[in-house]
Amino acid sequence: MASSSPTEIDAISCPIPDIDLGSYLFGRLHEIGFDGRGMTRPSYGREENFAHALFMEIGREYGLEIRRDWASNLFITLPGRARNLPVVMTGSHVDTVPCGGNFDGAAGAVAGLLVLCAWVKAGFRPMRDTTLIVTRAEESVWFPLSYLGSRAAFGLLNPSALDTPRSDDGVSLRQHMLDCGAEPDLCGRAPVLDPAKIDCFVELHIEQGPVLPEAGVPVGIVTGICGSTRYRSAVIHGQYAHSGATPRRFRSDAVMAGASMMTALHEAWEKVEAAGEEMTLTFGVCKTDPAQANFAAVPGRLELVIDIRSRDEALLDRMNALVIEQARRVEADYNVQVALGPRTRSTPAAMDETLQGRARSLAAEMGLPVISMPSGAGHDAATFAGQGIPTEMLFVRNANGSHNPDESMEMEDFMQGVSLLERLLRERAGK
Amino acid sequence: MASSSPTEIDAISCPIPDIDLGSYLFGRLHEIGFDGRGMTRPSYGREENFAHALFMEIGREYGLEIRRDWASNLFITLPGRARNLPVVMTGSHVDTVPCGGNFDGAAGAVAGLLVLCAWVKAGFRPMRDTTLIVTRAEESVWFPLSYLGSRAAFGLLNPSALDTPRSDDGVSLRQHMLDCGAEPDLCGRAPVLDPAKIDCFVELHIEQGPVLPEAGVPVGIVTGICGSTRYRSAVIHGQYAHSGATPRRFRSDAVMAGASMMTALHEAWEKVEAAGEEMTLTFGVCKTDPAQANFAAVPGRLELVIDIRSRDEALLDRMNALVIEQARRVEADYNVQVALGPRTRSTPAAMDETLQGRARSLAAEMGLPVISMPSGAGHDAATFAGQGIPTEMLFVRNANGSHNPDESMEMEDFMQGVSLLERLLRERAGK
Repeated sequence: MASSSPTEIDAISCPIPDIDLGSYLFGRLHEIGFDGRGMTRPSYGREENFAHALFMEIGREYGLEIRRDWASNLFITLPGRARNLPVVMTGSHVDTVPCGGNFDGAAGAVAGLLVLCAWVKAGFRPMRDTTLIVTRAEESVWFPLSYLGSRAAFGLLNPSALDTPRSDDGVSLRQHMLDCGAEPDLCGRAPVLDPAKIDCFVELHIEQGPVLPEAGVPVGIVTGICGSTRYRSAVIHGQYAHSGATPRRFRSDAVMAGASMMTALHEAWEKVEAAGEEMTLTFGVCKTDPAQANFAAVPGRLELVIDIRSRDEALLDRMNALVIEQARRVEADYNVQVALGPRTRSTPAAMDETLQGRARSLAAEMGLPVISMPSGAGHDAATFAGQGIPTEMLFVRNANGSHNPDESMEMEDFMQGVSLLERLLRERAGK
Repeated sequence: MASSSPTEIDAISCPIPDIDLGSYLFGRLHEIGFDGRGMTRPSYGREENFAHALFMEIGREYGLEIRRDWASNLFITLPGRARNLPVVMTGSHVDTVPCGGNFDGAAGAVAGLLVLCAWVKAGFRPMRDTTLIVTRAEESVWFPLSYLGSRAAFGLLNPSALDTPRSDDGVSLRQHMLDCGAEPDLCGRAPVLDPAKIDCFVELHIEQGPVLPEAGVPVGIVTGICGSTRYRSAVIHGQYAHSGATPRRFRSDAVMAGASMMTALHEAWEKVEAAGEEMTLTFGVCKTDPAQANFAAVPGRLELVIDIRSRDEALLDRMNALVIEQARRVEADYNVQVALGPRTRSTPAAMDETLQGRARSLAAEMGLPVISMPSGAGHDAATFAGQGIPTEMLFVRNANGSHNPDESMEMEDFMQGVSLLERLLRERAGK
């Protein structure tokens, strides 16, 4: 697969991304991450390293430039003819949630590599440098920080974050970075990506919800990325008491307080949607203490996580105020204490109108059906958009959602998404 | 502590229960059951055996008759002068919930033994046989069967129950019985307690709620024992999905369905109480699946336990119908499946009016302040009452509820309860 030196090609020849190389890469990523049931490639973990090494290996075979930054993000570049021009970028992450699927993140990294490899193979040399970034640590289940790798690349990581323990092993981000060959001591000091030197960023990603499968459309053009407001470790403190012998007026029932709070917030969500606003509200974890809770005791403790997402920052702020208001209400109504704990948040990001328009036009030229849609999930693209860089995302149809072993993306849909990405990047990088 | 042969005593002499023997017994029970934090004496387990052995040891020292039935319930009898008369009985259990306290159950068994030992020591020989029963397996957290030991003693245990696995180790009731020297093969065939040969049953127990501490009264005269209707293994099945990427209309959110169901049932409880009816409603366990639930996923599974108690059987039936109705409602509203699982139940039991009246009169004679109150918790006494035997319970003030390591009964309160029990049993057993 070694390539000859890139040369200019005629404007009408069209590089064809290699489906076999795509299948090979997904196969290798599966081998790396398979945990017996799904994919587990922890952020700044062994499996993420192996995945990065795979991308370096193929990049080298195709004669592409390889670079890593202090945070161990990986950059694979096809040099342009005018290297001083702002760079066209694409990319995604290759870490996964615990027992996740093989496509969330990886699809975008594989897509970017297929584009660069196709250009090399076709002898196409763009005007601008075109760079695939394989980010680190996008899945914030490991470290409670949104877009950790891409934020580090822009110098947005606070050095105090290096002390954050990873959720599975309690080992600090600093130590995990060191174990991956990164240089955490350069945090806050090292040269970082300069937004002024980036022309645009386009990220391909599987859709993580059911919208494209329900619509019967293979590719989505993303209009914006939701921000979030989250309480990952809320605890309702009540008082354990005999379930039969404790009259209601004496109770401090953590579960009933939690149920009341969740129900009230869900009703607020319904009203928000009825008013035509968009958001999601999820209590993904809700649990009594296995060591003390039993069927014959009023529950004295309930752990909750609260996740609210929207493209509308003002709505996120309103909902956050309502969470606090409801916490105070159930404290009074149920004689409990609600410790919401630290709040984490991410900012919504709008996608670039020009890129959206070009993506729709190119899809029409290809005869590829697309729909426009928001991204409820957060993505590294939000970091780029937050830096003022024209940013766009392409979603590929995927069944069964993501963050689970049943992610199901057809290679045919994927290759259509890659073709659209290739056209968009080629147009932007310049012939 | 060996005693001389019992003889009649003058009607005005009053046997004094031995506080030092009481403290000694509680100390030994604590040694037997301490798990590092609280008491764990599982039903038909090693620690329950040791506790039974302790009662046998003291019973033998005082020259009392010792007997075990096929289910390994323990009977300690002071023979009366007319052994053919129906027997006066007292007693309770010595098993505990996991990490429970030292007084729930044990207080009643210790109280009964103190009464018999005091009679022996005072040389008092009653007209009727007076028997302490130390039951087996009253805490149904181990086997999901109410009043297992006392029901076995009356031949009310269905042999099919012997296959029930114990909740902690999955080993069958049959095997655990065999390990305790019981004879489970006699279940349904062995001679059992005959209600016609029992004059009355009086059980002393700590109060398991805050009513006596709040009222500032050391002893309660119980008016009735609540029955229950329970779902110990309800599961709400939803669908895991990305919390940001899954619009509300596509969700099958098990936690939101559960919260809605719990809130609706809690509102029904408030209405029931506003109408002057008494019950309790508790969801003691409420948990998402630790292996799959995370902050970024719509939860696909919620486990719940539902515990409803009342002295009013018709109200229990109405509430059970409402549980089923609410399960069907949230299935429709939240696109989930609610598997309530097997229902377990126990029947409410009224306490004997004559015994209640005599207990109040004797307390007044002692200058002991008492209040009348229901028992929200179930007790072996309910089994005796269910057999038509005149039955009564005495509650002793106890702080911090029960079923936890912080049970807190003052020995002074306990000894006042024992004194009242002694007077009531002595009056009934006959001088």
